[in-house]
Amino acid sequence: VHDDLPCMDDDDLRRGRPTVHKAFDEATALLVGDALQTRAFELLAHASCDAQVCLKMISALAAASGSRGMAGGQAIDLESVGKKLDLAGLQQMHAMKTGALLSCAVQLGGIAAQLNSVQMANLDVYSTALGLAFQIVDDVLDATADSQTLGKTAGKDAAANKPTYVTLMGLDYAQKQAKELQETAIASLDSFGASAQALKDLALLVVNRGK
Amino acid sequence: VHDDLPCMDDDDLRRGRPTVHKAFDEATALLVGDALQTRAFELLAHASCDAQVCLKMISALAAASGSRGMAGGQAIDLESVGKKLDLAGLQQMHAMKTGALLSCAVQLGGIAAQLNSVQMANLDVYSTALGLAFQIVDDVLDATADSQTLGKTAGKDAAANKPTYVTLMGLDYAQKQAKELQETAIASLDSFGASAQALKDLALLVVNRGK
Repeated sequence: VHDDLPCMDDDDLRRGRPTVHKAFDEATALLVGDALQTRAFELLAHASCDAQVCLKMISALAAASGSRGMAGGQAIDLESVGKKLDLAGLQQMHAMKTGALLSCAVQLGGIAAQLNSVQMANLDVYSTALGLAFQIVDDVLDATADSQTLGKTAGKDAAANKPTYVTLMGLDYAQKQAKELQETAIASLDSFGASAQALKDLALLVVNRGK
Repeated sequence: VHDDLPCMDDDDLRRGRPTVHKAFDEATALLVGDALQTRAFELLAHASCDAQVCLKMISALAAASGSRGMAGGQAIDLESVGKKLDLAGLQQMHAMKTGALLSCAVQLGGIAAQLNSVQMANLDVYSTALGLAFQIVDDVLDATADSQTLGKTAGKDAAANKPTYVTLMGLDYAQKQAKELQETAIASLDSFGASAQALKDLALLVVNRGK
């Protein structure tokens, strides 16, 4: 909700529907984002887990959302408009901005299930690869699909002169990279066997999606 | 930080210094607020308390900050501009908008110290009275002091046609009420003896402050 605000990405559409500040107003969008972020921590505080496990989940979510995660990555993103960010810089920005929270979602499951450190490391490989693939596919779609298909305004990054994987690597290489990352993600789940089928399906979905 | 944004109170000054969106920009202010809120939960998750106690504190902070607390109260506040909010409505709004978080700050100490339910109830009387007194004094100062003394823009509520304790009760009665609430707050601490001196001093400071 905050990401769509005029001072951020200034998006009118999200999943084909008006964004919160368009349907209501900016003040409401600001408060909704604040209240939902709070609500996430509240839900974890009441999760039916051991108290230590709940705290670990809260700690992981906070690290992924705050200045070392999503909010910090978004700040780098805003600073990088019109600048010559290289591939390493772009990856660092996306790792924080979208990757951290995506990894956290996977991590929370691992923490709740009290997996061992090798299992957690495998999940990290999975979610890091998937997060990067997700962002590359996002950039590919922004450059190739139309707004109606995307359910949000297409071509915005190019218009804002933002560095993207497509502008930095070219369309063909970006698509190849996404495919390779998908394979890495799926291979990292081998040791989990059939219990990781949903995560494998997610990796297929993220890379093969049309919006 | 969020409260000062243009879509909220649109304040240029906070404690005599430029607000974050003035010193930097709106996007930075939005992210700083998001990151700091996250950081609060992160700090509580790492507090040197029993895990159950940490979770109780996180839960209290979330309840006080979210839709049933500060964010919800702010939403009511925004809706009430130009409307005829009565005294009960005004109190409910302030109880959520500023009272909940102030009470929470007091509550967190009680939770950390593992006080019994009677002690917690006494602290609730204290913080509820203090929160209400704080807001009444805020309204009195907004109506009587100048911007330089306040360190923020004075007379904003009247200019925005917002209901305040001063417009609803008159200046004299508002000042009398603040004094009575101060006495209630201090009396509620009797059973704590000398250990509550700092809280008593705070009640004196809040009502007798000039800014």
